[in-house]
Amino acid sequence: MMRILKRLLLALTLAFSLAPAVADPLPSWSDAPAKQAITDFVDAVTTEGSEDFVPVPERIAVFDNDGTLWVEQPMYTQLAFVLDRLKEMASEHPEWQEQQPYKAALEGDQEALGEAGMEGLMKLLMATHAGMTSAEFAGLAADWIGTARHPRFERPYTELVYQPMLELLEYLRANGFKTYIVSGGGIAFMRPWTEQVYGIPPEQVVGSQIELAYEVQDGKPVIVRQPEIAFIDDKAGKPVGIMRHIGRRPLLAFGNSDGDYQMLEWTTAGPGSRLGLLLHHDDGEREYAYDRESHFGRLDRGLDDAAEKGWQIVSMKRDWASVFPNAGPQAGQ
Amino acid sequence: MMRILKRLLLALTLAFSLAPAVADPLPSWSDAPAKQAITDFVDAVTTEGSEDFVPVPERIAVFDNDGTLWVEQPMYTQLAFVLDRLKEMASEHPEWQEQQPYKAALEGDQEALGEAGMEGLMKLLMATHAGMTSAEFAGLAADWIGTARHPRFERPYTELVYQPMLELLEYLRANGFKTYIVSGGGIAFMRPWTEQVYGIPPEQVVGSQIELAYEVQDGKPVIVRQPEIAFIDDKAGKPVGIMRHIGRRPLLAFGNSDGDYQMLEWTTAGPGSRLGLLLHHDDGEREYAYDRESHFGRLDRGLDDAAEKGWQIVSMKRDWASVFPNAGPQAGQ
Repeated sequence: MMRILKRLLLALTLAFSLAPAVADPLPSWSDAPAKQAITDFVDAVTTEGSEDFVPVPERIAVFDNDGTLWVEQPMYTQLAFVLDRLKEMASEHPEWQEQQPYKAALEGDQEALGEAGMEGLMKLLMATHAGMTSAEFAGLAADWIGTARHPRFERPYTELVYQPMLELLEYLRANGFKTYIVSGGGIAFMRPWTEQVYGIPPEQVVGSQIELAYEVQDGKPVIVRQPEIAFIDDKAGKPVGIMRHIGRRPLLAFGNSDGDYQMLEWTTAGPGSRLGLLLHHDDGEREYAYDRESHFGRLDRGLDDAAEKGWQIVSMKRDWASVFPNAGPQAGQ
Repeated sequence: MMRILKRLLLALTLAFSLAPAVADPLPSWSDAPAKQAITDFVDAVTTEGSEDFVPVPERIAVFDNDGTLWVEQPMYTQLAFVLDRLKEMASEHPEWQEQQPYKAALEGDQEALGEAGMEGLMKLLMATHAGMTSAEFAGLAADWIGTARHPRFERPYTELVYQPMLELLEYLRANGFKTYIVSGGGIAFMRPWTEQVYGIPPEQVVGSQIELAYEVQDGKPVIVRQPEIAFIDDKAGKPVGIMRHIGRRPLLAFGNSDGDYQMLEWTTAGPGSRLGLLLHHDDGEREYAYDRESHFGRLDRGLDDAAEKGWQIVSMKRDWASVFPNAGPQAGQ
């Protein structure tokens, strides 16, 4: 009797959870191919008795962050954080006024920064991301994200997340998926705010990492961030990051650049129904238009191979009825 | 109305979930100090309005595996797997008959193995754990765990998990905790069976790791296990592994050896109510008796410092009414 009652309650609860699904869980998605591909896929893997049915614990969906969940132009948001941090730290580092690549970063000298290359970028990253405890860094990232504004849209970066993607994350979770971020960005930069902004808890964020060391300082245990790269969660690193953190092959992977190519490839090569999606930034009016030639979020090989691989190209222009949440008057429109 | 109904249903569902708690969720724990400490702690962090109340998403509990969730004597189970694998592979490696440390491993020559030291062990580990895809290794681990038997108890290793710990894991989950394994053992060795045996899914297993490489072989994407250590999840590595994978400080940490010292230290140094526990293997009759002098699962510093640190020593003899699940007639009793 108790068991029957529990089942009934569960069924009722599930019915209520599914109620919003009936009322279009993806209102910011236009009635266009991408939306159809998504709902077809979710129906297939969640319908009991369907040959593509997948049990709840195996429903894993992975999302790139920069350019997939939020804006990555005119530069990666984390890079804006680096530049702001350098300015804040400059008074304690008078030598940076003459020393590259710090000088270039402080002066916004793009050309000199370009010349400093990857090695220069690493120096800037380590100067701003290492040498403090994990708790201190989380505080810095949270403070910055709470106050910084995007140069074009003049809104906090956390409001420049894509409304259709927020709906998709919620829709997948309502259908039993665990949603993960798998980003080339720094794991510690994202974790302080992903739960509030995306509903993705810190333990479901996979990203690039620097080395960490456990220490007891004056009797107080701390984790200290070391100036050394531990893992780059980009390109062929993404399937590796997924294996390390999740240990299961995802059912759905959503990216927007060639940095996501291997993540989609690995995901969609799995047996049964899988879905790979690439957001194509083709909407310079509402957001940005870029692909094969972009410094940030370059999408080239993915565009070439999507059809052959069966990946869904999501056109921002065609597939998204709206772009940002709470769409009030926005700069640049 | 709908909302009220939903709340009512939720309340009813919660009430039902809690019903077993009333009927003693920890029947294999004796009415002794450890059980009291556990239930007091869980009550404190889950009672709304309590000053120690912690919201569900932050309820993280971490467990060592070897010697905490299952038997680690007469040797780590993963080492038994290594030795069995070497025997299976020996016919393809005639050179091992003369070459150390393989010769010693094949002959069970403990002395020569000891002489080979950590470097020798690494060679054995790499010979058996690298050079295949992640999927192939998962198959090998799953096959072995399904057939291997413990030398003393003559039962599958997966039946030599501790019944009181299974109850504790379930009790914590029923109270909104996410339960994690944080083990010095290999993450890929554990993941194939932890969900079935402990109810802990692969994404909640943290362990030592070798390097992985993503490759496309004959058009098929695979993840290949590389003969190089990527991360040792032991001692000071445990808080680092927790930070990498979870990104939150746990509320509860349960271990049994000095390899768990820093995990308990990091956990219990957090603000609010925290619980650190160390299982003391003091029951040679029902299981094994070992601590300060043991090769596997040595517990020395932890015993010395537990009182000062406020950690709960769990005496197998005193605190556990039963040790293994489905306690039929067992060898060695």
